[in-house]
Amino acid sequence: MINYLQAFHFSESDLDYLEELGYRTDYIDFLRTVYFTGSVRAMKEGEVAFGDAPILRIEAPLIEAQLIETALLNIVNYQTLIATKASRIKQVVGGEQPVSELGTRRAHEFDAALWGTRATYIGGFSSTSNVRAGKRFDLPTSGTHAHSYVQAYQNEYIAFHRYAKSHSNCVSLVDTYDTIKSGVPTAIKVAKELGNNINFEGIRIDSGDLAYLSKEARKLLDQAGFFDTKIYASNDLDEYTIMNLRAQGAKIDAWGVGTKAITAFDQPALGSVYKLVSIEDENGQLRDTIKLSASPEKVTTPGLKKVFRIINNHTKKAEGDYIALANEQPEKEGKLHMFHPVHTHIGKFVTHFTAKDLHENIIDRGTLAYECPHVQEIQSYAEEQLNLLWEEYKRSLNPAEYPVNLSQACWDNKMKNIEKAKKHSQKPVPL
Amino acid sequence: MINYLQAFHFSESDLDYLEELGYRTDYIDFLRTVYFTGSVRAMKEGEVAFGDAPILRIEAPLIEAQLIETALLNIVNYQTLIATKASRIKQVVGGEQPVSELGTRRAHEFDAALWGTRATYIGGFSSTSNVRAGKRFDLPTSGTHAHSYVQAYQNEYIAFHRYAKSHSNCVSLVDTYDTIKSGVPTAIKVAKELGNNINFEGIRIDSGDLAYLSKEARKLLDQAGFFDTKIYASNDLDEYTIMNLRAQGAKIDAWGVGTKAITAFDQPALGSVYKLVSIEDENGQLRDTIKLSASPEKVTTPGLKKVFRIINNHTKKAEGDYIALANEQPEKEGKLHMFHPVHTHIGKFVTHFTAKDLHENIIDRGTLAYECPHVQEIQSYAEEQLNLLWEEYKRSLNPAEYPVNLSQACWDNKMKNIEKAKKHSQKPVPL
Repeated sequence: MINYLQAFHFSESDLDYLEELGYRTDYIDFLRTVYFTGSVRAMKEGEVAFGDAPILRIEAPLIEAQLIETALLNIVNYQTLIATKASRIKQVVGGEQPVSELGTRRAHEFDAALWGTRATYIGGFSSTSNVRAGKRFDLPTSGTHAHSYVQAYQNEYIAFHRYAKSHSNCVSLVDTYDTIKSGVPTAIKVAKELGNNINFEGIRIDSGDLAYLSKEARKLLDQAGFFDTKIYASNDLDEYTIMNLRAQGAKIDAWGVGTKAITAFDQPALGSVYKLVSIEDENGQLRDTIKLSASPEKVTTPGLKKVFRIINNHTKKAEGDYIALANEQPEKEGKLHMFHPVHTHIGKFVTHFTAKDLHENIIDRGTLAYECPHVQEIQSYAEEQLNLLWEEYKRSLNPAEYPVNLSQACWDNKMKNIEKAKKHSQKPVPL
Repeated sequence: MINYLQAFHFSESDLDYLEELGYRTDYIDFLRTVYFTGSVRAMKEGEVAFGDAPILRIEAPLIEAQLIETALLNIVNYQTLIATKASRIKQVVGGEQPVSELGTRRAHEFDAALWGTRATYIGGFSSTSNVRAGKRFDLPTSGTHAHSYVQAYQNEYIAFHRYAKSHSNCVSLVDTYDTIKSGVPTAIKVAKELGNNINFEGIRIDSGDLAYLSKEARKLLDQAGFFDTKIYASNDLDEYTIMNLRAQGAKIDAWGVGTKAITAFDQPALGSVYKLVSIEDENGQLRDTIKLSASPEKVTTPGLKKVFRIINNHTKKAEGDYIALANEQPEKEGKLHMFHPVHTHIGKFVTHFTAKDLHENIIDRGTLAYECPHVQEIQSYAEEQLNLLWEEYKRSLNPAEYPVNLSQACWDNKMKNIEKAKKHSQKPVPL
């Protein structure tokens, strides 16, 4: 996003195209002068974002703010979606076992493979098979040989032998022909023959009944004395299949996750929106704006705002997010009234809290004001932020609803704007 | 795909990275010399591809064929997926009414927005709001003003007035505040005031109950004499919601489709695979290879193959696809036995047919052998190919299964290879 905003400009060939489309010359001449000169305050990468809490806030001349809208939504929606999906998977897997990203072949084109891979790492994955992403973002890469490697030799014995000789830490892919009758026994045979010349790190099962096959494979490995040889599993896995395999006692030590993470298969789009909440009038005064809707959750919240995570000083856990008008200072209040923004009777009073401002200065009037951390640091940050949440908010199925509340002033301002819009929106006025 | 293969090469910085990762210098030196020198035969863009029928066939040195695997799958999977989804939507909409692509904000990064948009056009969409794709691929672009345009004026009357004055063919977005009470009446008022100075082309409804709102809006427009003013609808539409709106008698003339098409929301990944089916031995003879699986449909079909669409000369409709070994010539046979490749007792004999070879020469030993048509031509080609199929194969819900069969020789060869693999795959042999 930062790269995009800093490079934002129309090329001459873009402008020629707009001229072809019939745009007026004076408008095109104006576009030639447009750069992004605004300010961006946003959650840091790795921050845990909830629905209704603004991920970022743009202050810019209207035309600039509108021209960047689609690109920003595209970037923020996709990367947030994939980091979230990866994080859901990692939470089911737990801290000990590694998850490798394997989804490039099903990602939606190259950019998705690249940035999606980065997002899975932020969400807690350990490595990727996408070497281009590894190079670009300094991510750990990992992989095994392909089925075609075995097929090329037409014989698992030769294939595993050759592979082991050129890869001393070797993982054999054992399901090209028959996992239990052929693949695992052959891998064991080769490992025994090569003995200390190799480190028989693992076997990988990529198809079939992973619960059954992993348990049988574990027995064969243990019987042969390879207690430390790990079982890698892959095949359309996600948090639900992994939870299920765990429940069946599958003997899997490391997970390869592809399609389901890189496409966020069960919900492949995040519906973030980008709304005008305030505009300067002729006198330089901010005038709040609103978009109404028949669905209460789609009504926008007017005004320049901040968003705080309210952290309980005793439990060190988050009590909820608190959206306030930009001039409020909840961090200085002793007692905070947090109430549901739609069902306003649901609420609580919070004391002894820390109010953490979730927005950082990213770009200040066109100038970068932020140093992007290494992706490893972002991953750790995400993990720390997740630890601020009670488990109830994080479970895969039927999680409790995390409170995202409005301050009283913010809520009052919203109600005022709703009334005003209802009264004045269509009123014919002197032009 | 063609661009990728023709540009395929490791840069010095790629090779430096591989060296960092610990790859051997002689291997890196070898990679420096690798270009794609193989041949590609593939279905033309816009061809209708069914499961199990090979979309393309690569003949190349093993290392080249393996290095390009992931990128090819990425490209072919995504673009085929989106063209298919768009085509499903267009078939429900029918030939008359236009569908505009509006999905960039939810596409999986920029490449997906760009190439996905192109794929929706091939699938039958009429235009896109992605101006970059319009420029790159010469696609028609279209769009309306945003909610923020109305919000900036805080008054629909002023906003519509200003917009109409600068856009003589104007479509007003009427759902910023209240579609029926405010948006539509205000748009009508402005149109009446400006009279012949503008062409009041349409209104767009982007939220709420589209069936109810479109019917009410139609009444208001008709009462005011704007019989030709069209109603545009958008809001998470796909073939199912459109079918449903039609069934409810919604008065919608043009459709905007975003998220659901550009992400193929209900099935966001196509599972094409890339398999080694034959390899040259030391004597230059092709030796077929196979991948077995506990699931019969996942067993690969060995050998160099062709795929034909068998078209009935009387009905001009497709009887099914017919996969044959490369040396077979089904187009010269008078009577073809087409049978189900798994349930072999299901079959039919076909006479008086045309066997259309679905693969074209795209790249011939590294050299481009194909001229890419304009995307408009590809769209027309796709439409013609869809017309070869009975409606029963194309319906959205519970379509009939289109036959994709193997020739007797191809089937026999597969069975022979299955037996061979079962016997010899794990046999220790002298190394």
